[in-house]
Amino acid sequence: MASEFYDLVIVGGGPAGITAGIYAARQRLKTLLITKTFAGQIARKAVAIENYPGFESTSGLDLMQKFETQLKKHKIDIEMNSVKEIRKNGKEFIILTATRKEFQARSIIIASGADPRPLEVPGEKEFIGKGVSYCVACDGPLYVGKKVVIIGGGNAGFEAAISLSHYVEKIYILEHGSEAKADKENQEKAGKTGKVEVITSAAIEKIEGENFVSKVLYQDLKSKETKALNVEGVFVEIGSQPATSFVKDLVDFNEKDEIVADPYTGKTKTPGLFAAGDVDNVPYKQVVIAAGEGAKAAIAASIYLQNSN
Amino acid sequence: MASEFYDLVIVGGGPAGITAGIYAARQRLKTLLITKTFAGQIARKAVAIENYPGFESTSGLDLMQKFETQLKKHKIDIEMNSVKEIRKNGKEFIILTATRKEFQARSIIIASGADPRPLEVPGEKEFIGKGVSYCVACDGPLYVGKKVVIIGGGNAGFEAAISLSHYVEKIYILEHGSEAKADKENQEKAGKTGKVEVITSAAIEKIEGENFVSKVLYQDLKSKETKALNVEGVFVEIGSQPATSFVKDLVDFNEKDEIVADPYTGKTKTPGLFAAGDVDNVPYKQVVIAAGEGAKAAIAASIYLQNSN
Repeated sequence: MASEFYDLVIVGGGPAGITAGIYAARQRLKTLLITKTFAGQIARKAVAIENYPGFESTSGLDLMQKFETQLKKHKIDIEMNSVKEIRKNGKEFIILTATRKEFQARSIIIASGADPRPLEVPGEKEFIGKGVSYCVACDGPLYVGKKVVIIGGGNAGFEAAISLSHYVEKIYILEHGSEAKADKENQEKAGKTGKVEVITSAAIEKIEGENFVSKVLYQDLKSKETKALNVEGVFVEIGSQPATSFVKDLVDFNEKDEIVADPYTGKTKTPGLFAAGDVDNVPYKQVVIAAGEGAKAAIAASIYLQNSN
Repeated sequence: MASEFYDLVIVGGGPAGITAGIYAARQRLKTLLITKTFAGQIARKAVAIENYPGFESTSGLDLMQKFETQLKKHKIDIEMNSVKEIRKNGKEFIILTATRKEFQARSIIIASGADPRPLEVPGEKEFIGKGVSYCVACDGPLYVGKKVVIIGGGNAGFEAAISLSHYVEKIYILEHGSEAKADKENQEKAGKTGKVEVITSAAIEKIEGENFVSKVLYQDLKSKETKALNVEGVFVEIGSQPATSFVKDLVDFNEKDEIVADPYTGKTKTPGLFAAGDVDNVPYKQVVIAAGEGAKAAIAASIYLQNSN
């Protein structure tokens, strides 16, 4: 079966992928963007985004819809699908999707982002959808008047708490370290809700319940005692893991399993293969940073294509 | 005279500086932003901006006003001034302005951008404001029905041509190289105006006139002949030079006179001194890239301040 041939295939429809798509289309590259969804991580964000320049306050979903609309004004092919495998064939790339579609490309930008990192404790998998959630914006309203625990005391955890405070009666935040790592602004906002109790030096051990979650056990890392919290919801906010299952030996990974990419251009170790956004080793994960990296990768891909003619 | 003491002073009010300001304020850093203007390079852009994600089409001025409004929602001091000198005093920095005001800071982000690069040919200085311009958005409307030349065949030159086509009768673009470097999109748009003639392999030699510009001489680099164009306007679009006169041995410079900064964090060779945006050595100069670098520098400055307590 003859597969379609592109100058550039972009994998991912978040801030980095969409920005790369806008730039590539303006460079008149024959471009395909493959993504499962245009929502992605950022659209699941529960609190308003107030640090993307140009928008005083917006929801992740609204912002990403603006990005998507802007992308679609351009001449670019879009395939709603997930990528299963990327292979090299001589100087070209072959991209296989989950539905066994095949595409060819002279260059690729991997902007597939990251998925929530699981806790990997007993009870977690069993209670997914029955009290265990990785998405406050999706599931928060189900917990009106209930007690919940958030695992993780970084910005994501505190933002989850601020959002959940509109629904729930009581929020515990369990933080593994000796102090919460969230921004001062987020800590202040969470404090003002009057519903948040932060428990530091706490390592979650187990999630228990009958049909639904009813209890979480954690170790107090100072006293070494196991303690229990009676909660009906567990929100996991301990970071994310890069979505890279479809690309193996074509790139190098760092200790966080992020793709190693040149920070000026997004170049990986394979010529013609670029990475941008939360999937790569840029340390600070922010919408505006990911968008900037997407622009860099598209410009670099365009230069690569001109020079490899 | 006791000078005010800040956690962070940001020099510059363009996309990088403003984004850094938003991020720093959200980190509750005591921050001062010093800038001559919130307009800057981007506000002088003559054509619509269509590649900043979130805005399908906007003017540089409108976009920068949105940035400025968003910044001012935060707790941050703003000094409308230009910086004359940055000195180190122990671990701290002293910032002197053009009006001899003095500020102290524990950290600095230089985001002062770049100024238009001059041609440095005879006649240029004499005819500034009398036919020689570095700002199409400012001066374009003065040339209704006239013939003009744009020096530089990159994106800036072609965007200038697209904008000027609304006013002028005829536009020459002089490009030093053997072909124009602008995006295909910009070349197509300029071509469609029917008013643009691109002259490649052309080196400008001299600008002539009486009270106002009337003629430009250039060398045809292939035939080595000097040729003349009868024009009343000369728009200079040959790039920019980083605005770094106030900082000397505290940073290293590359061959383009850009500040050498770590691309992950904006760190320079001096601890506590960061750079972001068009003033540094990130190769592609774009609003969204500069904004992303501003965010990185502010986060890195915040971490630096925590660790140097």
